[in-house]
Amino acid sequence: MPELRRDPIIGRWVIVSTERGRRPTNYKEQPKEDPGKPCPFCAGNESFTPPEIIAYRSPGSPKDGAGWWVRVVPNKFPALQIEGSLNRSGEGMYDRMNGIGAHEVIIETPEHKKEIPDLEDSKAEDILWAFRDRILDLRKDARFEYILIFKNYGFAAGASLAHPHSQLIALPVVPRRVAEEVRGARGYYEYKERCVFCDIIQQEMASQSRIIAENDDFIAFEPFASRFPFETWVLPKIHDPCFEDASKHELVNLTRIMKVTLEKLRVVLENPPYNWLIHNSPLKESHTVHFHWHIEIIPKLVRVAGFEWGTGFYINPTPPEEAAKFLREA
Amino acid sequence: MPELRRDPIIGRWVIVSTERGRRPTNYKEQPKEDPGKPCPFCAGNESFTPPEIIAYRSPGSPKDGAGWWVRVVPNKFPALQIEGSLNRSGEGMYDRMNGIGAHEVIIETPEHKKEIPDLEDSKAEDILWAFRDRILDLRKDARFEYILIFKNYGFAAGASLAHPHSQLIALPVVPRRVAEEVRGARGYYEYKERCVFCDIIQQEMASQSRIIAENDDFIAFEPFASRFPFETWVLPKIHDPCFEDASKHELVNLTRIMKVTLEKLRVVLENPPYNWLIHNSPLKESHTVHFHWHIEIIPKLVRVAGFEWGTGFYINPTPPEEAAKFLREA
Repeated sequence: MPELRRDPIIGRWVIVSTERGRRPTNYKEQPKEDPGKPCPFCAGNESFTPPEIIAYRSPGSPKDGAGWWVRVVPNKFPALQIEGSLNRSGEGMYDRMNGIGAHEVIIETPEHKKEIPDLEDSKAEDILWAFRDRILDLRKDARFEYILIFKNYGFAAGASLAHPHSQLIALPVVPRRVAEEVRGARGYYEYKERCVFCDIIQQEMASQSRIIAENDDFIAFEPFASRFPFETWVLPKIHDPCFEDASKHELVNLTRIMKVTLEKLRVVLENPPYNWLIHNSPLKESHTVHFHWHIEIIPKLVRVAGFEWGTGFYINPTPPEEAAKFLREA
Repeated sequence: MPELRRDPIIGRWVIVSTERGRRPTNYKEQPKEDPGKPCPFCAGNESFTPPEIIAYRSPGSPKDGAGWWVRVVPNKFPALQIEGSLNRSGEGMYDRMNGIGAHEVIIETPEHKKEIPDLEDSKAEDILWAFRDRILDLRKDARFEYILIFKNYGFAAGASLAHPHSQLIALPVVPRRVAEEVRGARGYYEYKERCVFCDIIQQEMASQSRIIAENDDFIAFEPFASRFPFETWVLPKIHDPCFEDASKHELVNLTRIMKVTLEKLRVVLENPPYNWLIHNSPLKESHTVHFHWHIEIIPKLVRVAGFEWGTGFYINPTPPEEAAKFLREA
């Protein structure tokens, strides 16, 4: 079973996959995809994945058979294991926990090469509904503190299969990056009695210089202090701590703005590798007034090196205002 | 002039290189090195770099000419600019500062292919003395709060030139990664009245399972909660907050353990790209009892993807105890 270990200095948790135990020579980068092997995520190959958790499929089509358009399955090589109860233990000054969690794959389409911008609106929207269904189900599990939904697109961004898919990981702790965002937003709220994200939206809408797309419910923009060139955030305009509380109307508009934004990045950056992730409220703080869920999209254009690892500082060679101009005009 | 911008949610500073302003199509990865171009760091090519700041050279050899074995020059494409006074300003809710700082290159040897393990002990040691000289000089500058010394080895780890070199960046703020380490160490000290790093050394020496090399003054080991496979830390055994306070005896032994450790990584991981960095005390807190300077070495073996960006959690596929075994036996 994988193990969670806590850094004794700063308290960061790390997943140590004791089972995989990759040997030193196992780290030479793998080729993108073996064209001789059938894609386990394509229609007709459902038997190559573990049994489906949910699928949106034509009435009467059989479970784990063809006829679906969105399909959620357990990750075949999970970073965390779903069975078992949480056990914490110490080893001298060190802390560990067994690696309990969920790790699922959302197969976004049965077609091998259709990314979100290429799908019909209703089909792309159903990917978002599948995210919501899985969050609603997993949040009933008292062992979990956080659910992260994310996507790795392209080999350099960490994808090991080319077929369009995103992933979900449910964790028994609130991860640092989220905890510090929640803490920062709480600090701002205590000082101003306003949500920091709502204030960002207001200032961005007034200035317009970093906005790349907008509709009734969402804005997409390049953050003022973007860590990475062409880093793009998508925020709901109306304050809401939880993705899963979005209305039908909002999910329709989220689909639209994600299609437009991802298409702009594809055109301007010539089909870059990227990651996106949903920053949602911690599960047990979902009614906090100060947090505001959002999506962060990070094109993988630069190499993170010693300076960034050593400091947590980033060097961004393209000012967000310039990046926004390129993306707006695309 | 580059600009520092502060994230309004979590307070992270980012360097936005407004001058470079890289265009979208400028991000296609560059080839390693143009073999037709002379290497600016090789002996005889001193005129290709800005004038040297310091050099260790044969008596009588001319400044910016051959005859040196360690040479420090300003970075030709600095992330921060050395001239000017610090100005902070606001733009609505956003904060910025002009990008004042130092960015220097330590050319470790006049020879194009000799890394630290390949150098004579006395020559490798002089690289460390050059680091110390530069810290002592720059810490007199009241504008600076932190000095990071780091190395990027190999293209995938961010190096743009193959000639052995490390870098120094002096910053007008204490970076987050350091601040959180100092904060964590302070918290531990307040609770235990002991240095967390000293306690780690004691536990590691008792267990031996993660130690890979040791001498009178230093240990090298795989941290219990290693973020990355084969992540390796080097710590002075005697508590000391500042690298620049190391004795002659300690720098001799640091040279030895760095040579051994880097050679082990090279053999076991087949010459991997890597980063290393010195975590030193913030300049204005250099007499704190709780911080303990150290070196972190991070081989670049895995791709950082959406899960890591989204959470700050890392997945390490090789348990540190196994990594230590491979490295100990090399």
